[in-house]
Amino acid sequence: MKIINVKTNDSYNVYIERGILSETGKYVRKVSRAVRAAIISDSNVAPIYAERVEKSLRENGFETSLFVFEAGEERKRLSTVEQMYAHFFDNDMTRSDIVVALGGGVVGDMAGYAAASYLRGIDFVQIPTSLLAQVDSSVGGKTGVDLSVGKNLVGAFKQPKTVLIDPDTLDTLPQKFFNDGMGEVIKYGCIRSRTLFERLEKENAMDFIDDIIYECISIKSLVVEHDALDTGERAILNFGHTFGHALEKLYNYSGITHGEAVGLGAYLITKITEKKGITEAGSADRIYKLLKKYDMTTSTEFPIDDIVKATRGDKKSSGKGISFIFLRSIGDCFIYRIENSEVKGFFA
Amino acid sequence: MKIINVKTNDSYNVYIERGILSETGKYVRKVSRAVRAAIISDSNVAPIYAERVEKSLRENGFETSLFVFEAGEERKRLSTVEQMYAHFFDNDMTRSDIVVALGGGVVGDMAGYAAASYLRGIDFVQIPTSLLAQVDSSVGGKTGVDLSVGKNLVGAFKQPKTVLIDPDTLDTLPQKFFNDGMGEVIKYGCIRSRTLFERLEKENAMDFIDDIIYECISIKSLVVEHDALDTGERAILNFGHTFGHALEKLYNYSGITHGEAVGLGAYLITKITEKKGITEAGSADRIYKLLKKYDMTTSTEFPIDDIVKATRGDKKSSGKGISFIFLRSIGDCFIYRIENSEVKGFFA
Repeated sequence: MKIINVKTNDSYNVYIERGILSETGKYVRKVSRAVRAAIISDSNVAPIYAERVEKSLRENGFETSLFVFEAGEERKRLSTVEQMYAHFFDNDMTRSDIVVALGGGVVGDMAGYAAASYLRGIDFVQIPTSLLAQVDSSVGGKTGVDLSVGKNLVGAFKQPKTVLIDPDTLDTLPQKFFNDGMGEVIKYGCIRSRTLFERLEKENAMDFIDDIIYECISIKSLVVEHDALDTGERAILNFGHTFGHALEKLYNYSGITHGEAVGLGAYLITKITEKKGITEAGSADRIYKLLKKYDMTTSTEFPIDDIVKATRGDKKSSGKGISFIFLRSIGDCFIYRIENSEVKGFFA
Repeated sequence: MKIINVKTNDSYNVYIERGILSETGKYVRKVSRAVRAAIISDSNVAPIYAERVEKSLRENGFETSLFVFEAGEERKRLSTVEQMYAHFFDNDMTRSDIVVALGGGVVGDMAGYAAASYLRGIDFVQIPTSLLAQVDSSVGGKTGVDLSVGKNLVGAFKQPKTVLIDPDTLDTLPQKFFNDGMGEVIKYGCIRSRTLFERLEKENAMDFIDDIIYECISIKSLVVEHDALDTGERAILNFGHTFGHALEKLYNYSGITHGEAVGLGAYLITKITEKKGITEAGSADRIYKLLKKYDMTTSTEFPIDDIVKATRGDKKSSGKGISFIFLRSIGDCFIYRIENSEVKGFFA
């Protein structure tokens, strides 16, 4: 078993262990004296894993309930969260009870936000079952939903009480969702771990996936510990994301996954900064080859002007500028702020 | 001018001063480097005060925008908050900008929640214009909205950057809203200030309203400083509220204001605890006379059994019990937890 302790205000453990799903109740009991546990899951994940999780919770003295919503990014809306609130009310959830998020990034983001806002906040735990959620979104306390005008525009910072990662769940993950997660994995290599990046080049990710999860979460927890509320250093986790979000918007959130958009965003921005002499030569090409190797999109029909325009309203905006993340070289990044009036010129 | 410094994580000042509304911009600039300020108000308050506030903000270098929703408790819903999010997006609000809540409790609760959740949290200031908001809800960081199944079930803890209280605004307040606030004022006397309670008995509230506001906010800030997240002592602010919320529910939130329900709840619970020998004899009668004096409801057609039943789902529930607040005497209270299975018997 691998354990990472995330030292935010209330510190918490991330456990990485094959088969840990069947011991959910034991680990939740370590961090909660709740009477009730409400499991939130979606229509892809619940049929495979909910029973096992529920059984373990009951064996450890929790009264359980299960709320399942239809799988899909397009359900990541306030209306779905409202249904969760109704479920909590119907099941007499009180402030000392606990929410269990069982699923991918959408489940974790939404269940976390429902927990953060119901009764002004009740505890929750993360059981991420997708690679994206296991290497990235389940740790760090960002929760939220989309609005029709933009992604993740509404949310809360709310750290989970614990995170249980069972890499066995990746065996049932469709290929496209695996690739989705690889976008974030490559990002972690780019911003903080040349070693990880080089292993991804030389080996096959699936052969050392437990190490990958551990490495990504380790990087993320260090960054989050320094800047839980995302007012500074945490912005580096956004490498590839400003263009990535813009691409998702241009594609109307269909035909490109978040991870693919991030991977492509990372490549495009690095191609530009390399040309400008900001990034070590050859870096963009290495990202390109890694995207290829892991079957991810490497090009788009949208011209760079459109992508730059679509960055408007990005959450990394503040005042009258926007913070971009650039690489010096693979494994080394920095924050670069550009005023709104100069964005167009910079990318011309 | 009276100033109270509230020492929560980020400490902030509450200013009480006649005419301070016209100097809004000066005080907001002290706590914010925002480019944009979004004023949130309702259809009762905006026509009287919005222009003055907007002008002062502009004079201090803020780009302003104004969102006005129809006044009324029944608008305190997620759907109204969603309209605020859309307003923020349309006006390019970023994480470093600021929301200005101008109005009574409903405006403050909702604008605060919109600010707490948009982009996972942007700053906001409170400019309370009703007595209820000036003596109670504008300070302490509780924000939220109602669900169809219950009041304030969704929300966040989010302290304002500052609170500007202009007692002159009470001159335009209809009598019923003034009485609404008096319910909370009497509560503060009951739980922590025999002196305030006795002045309310001997004098006329409107003759020393600035002192009342100062006294109530002083008590509240001390309680909130010790327990910002409402996990212990803060529960005492709930005196009269468990029955009060139940009464509001039984009346379907019409025909009785929040403050009236709290006042009546305070009286009813104290009549019971007095009979049980928990509270000093004569206390309930003194509360009764004060409610009469300030034109508030002193009786209900609902039997106590119905009121007790309607406390189900109260936010002060946790696990399998509920915390009530009882008086020892006027000015002295304590928390008394009753298990769900024993609630009925206790009030039999």
